[in-house]
Amino acid sequence: MGNLLVAQSGGPTAAINASLAGVITMAKQNINIEIVYGSRYGINGVLNDNLVVLNELTDYELSLLEKTPGAYLGSARHLLSKVYDEEYEKILETVKKHNISYICFIGGNDSMDTVSKLSAYFESISYPCNVIGVPKTVDNDLVLTDHCPGFGSAGKYVASTLSEIKLDTAVYEKGRVTIVEIMGRDAGWLTACSKLPSIIGLGPDLIYMPEVAFDLDTFLNDVDALYKKNKKVLVAISEGIRDKDGNYMMALSTASKADGFGHTQLGGAAANLCEIVKERLGYNTRAVELSLPQRCAGHMVSKTDIDEAKRCGEFAVMSAIDNTAKFVCMIRDDSKKYSIHLELKNIHEVANKVKPFPKEWIINGNDISEEFINYAAPLIEGEVELEYKLGVPNYLRIK
Amino acid sequence: MGNLLVAQSGGPTAAINASLAGVITMAKQNINIEIVYGSRYGINGVLNDNLVVLNELTDYELSLLEKTPGAYLGSARHLLSKVYDEEYEKILETVKKHNISYICFIGGNDSMDTVSKLSAYFESISYPCNVIGVPKTVDNDLVLTDHCPGFGSAGKYVASTLSEIKLDTAVYEKGRVTIVEIMGRDAGWLTACSKLPSIIGLGPDLIYMPEVAFDLDTFLNDVDALYKKNKKVLVAISEGIRDKDGNYMMALSTASKADGFGHTQLGGAAANLCEIVKERLGYNTRAVELSLPQRCAGHMVSKTDIDEAKRCGEFAVMSAIDNTAKFVCMIRDDSKKYSIHLELKNIHEVANKVKPFPKEWIINGNDISEEFINYAAPLIEGEVELEYKLGVPNYLRIK
Repeated sequence: MGNLLVAQSGGPTAAINASLAGVITMAKQNINIEIVYGSRYGINGVLNDNLVVLNELTDYELSLLEKTPGAYLGSARHLLSKVYDEEYEKILETVKKHNISYICFIGGNDSMDTVSKLSAYFESISYPCNVIGVPKTVDNDLVLTDHCPGFGSAGKYVASTLSEIKLDTAVYEKGRVTIVEIMGRDAGWLTACSKLPSIIGLGPDLIYMPEVAFDLDTFLNDVDALYKKNKKVLVAISEGIRDKDGNYMMALSTASKADGFGHTQLGGAAANLCEIVKERLGYNTRAVELSLPQRCAGHMVSKTDIDEAKRCGEFAVMSAIDNTAKFVCMIRDDSKKYSIHLELKNIHEVANKVKPFPKEWIINGNDISEEFINYAAPLIEGEVELEYKLGVPNYLRIK
Repeated sequence: MGNLLVAQSGGPTAAINASLAGVITMAKQNINIEIVYGSRYGINGVLNDNLVVLNELTDYELSLLEKTPGAYLGSARHLLSKVYDEEYEKILETVKKHNISYICFIGGNDSMDTVSKLSAYFESISYPCNVIGVPKTVDNDLVLTDHCPGFGSAGKYVASTLSEIKLDTAVYEKGRVTIVEIMGRDAGWLTACSKLPSIIGLGPDLIYMPEVAFDLDTFLNDVDALYKKNKKVLVAISEGIRDKDGNYMMALSTASKADGFGHTQLGGAAANLCEIVKERLGYNTRAVELSLPQRCAGHMVSKTDIDEAKRCGEFAVMSAIDNTAKFVCMIRDDSKKYSIHLELKNIHEVANKVKPFPKEWIINGNDISEEFINYAAPLIEGEVELEYKLGVPNYLRIK
């Protein structure tokens, strides 16, 4: 009999607390586990012995937690050293003090690095503490797993919002180029979700991904041709689009000065490209950055995503009893109707690797293929019923 | 027996199509009305004889239309002249050609000006065409009516999103000042809605309205004091905040240069204030502009708002049979439980007037009083069930 510690790490999402709810629910039921500790602010809570007991959360509170965006326990972006320094000693101290036999770490790439290092450390000193990773990232860029919890909800928000922006920008007769900037510095998975409303005729006209070198002249030609045809052009871009030399469009100040525009530009890629379209093509423009709501819109989550996130948390606890250095993967079943099953994979094969968006799913550098729609549509399906208080969703906050 | 023409005007909202659905539904039932025409792109459709027949919309399509954001017929921002020029002649031509006896104009301030002028024109030439205005604006700044259709849904989106951003920005231990920019150049009604999630402990820490002269030093002191206490500071600002001399914070380039910051700044008030906080106080910042989704988030509308918007459209048609130069007003009943009834008011008393946010509801220049919560909370209540297609709301587009 031992205790379990759970931590959340990396950027918040709308589904990370569903995984936490899954961990707590299953840990409370498991006869091998006595106390469920939550680490405040990712690994920092373990380093500073800043833990909270989670057993007292009621079923009602856990149902609210499941639907609450953010990261209930707080998060961190702290990487452990490659050599076993005093931080590892501090961690061991906290683990020993609280008799922690199992650790579940919910997070993305950097967090899986922590799981990899921690599990290797405990094995190296033969200390009996199992460490399991639970995937989480709106970027959807973890390898081995079919997709990541958090992606479906962010994708649903992006898809719906793009369709609504399409309706909004269609209302005036006069022309305009609207450029919408979507999260995902290195992987275009979320940007590609802007394609999903095309099934109801409300997708963007052009989509630019970070996986393809961005060419300004080609972009301007694309926009110009569409503007001359339709007058209203809706463009979706990844925040991370960059040219063949790796220069981000979000930091065009030097390039644009060299181009003779004379602007010192702050702000994102969409704002910069709007300025350039205005200067070069003379068209009205509007930049929209979807910003934080993409990853925290608890009011617009995918039921598939929330359910899967919870299942991953539950599975991690069951797995932690007899496994360490593992990572919970979602494997898509080979059936007509969408379904997944969960498997454990070696954490060392996951950490520090990135799953790029398949280049063969990008068409002409400015569109997304049907293969992606088939892949992603099931992940954004289903709606979650929320509890509302005076018109606002009721979320659970840590006390 | 005559025909009815309906037009939409001004900025799109999530509720303007509910009013249109109300107009069409009621006009189809009314024995005085034969054909229901829609004017494409506001008054422009009347000027250019660009009308569509709306009678064929099925009940199913009307139910989709009711929940579709944007402006189904298209919109315009075109003001008629004060003198009866050739545009009035063109309008009369279209009206005569299509035997139009009733016009319903759904829109905000400028649109009510059009209703005022058009109805006066028809009266001046003794032409039997009744013109009725239906309120619409997320800005909530029309006089005489308790509130405007569109405001409740935009307010619900702002309130929910603010609460989610609050959760998102709370996850890290390190400090940050997050500034969220909300629509409403001259009226702070929508910005004030950021206060609503305070009832679940998720409101912003500071709120700045365009009705109070913005003082940069006071703002920096407010932020600094809170940062030293909590490290995480969430600020909601109206896009229209300006100093005592009327200088908008969204165009601080000259001021900031004079202040020695040396930046040429594009972008909105939030981005500019973030730069200043970083420079003067040295804190991490993040600017979030809620942008278009505020007025077009059909996935997060208020049921109260959508129902009322539809009622206003229906009432306009019933009123148009025997009235002209009127405007549909929502009057709040003096009862414990929230309810409204509809009344007609003189359009000439509405046009070109603005209802400011009550100054007595603004506390210390950076907070909103409970009176506003009592006023606005009922307007954002209730959720609308949408039809989804592969995870995305299904909306109706004009063919």
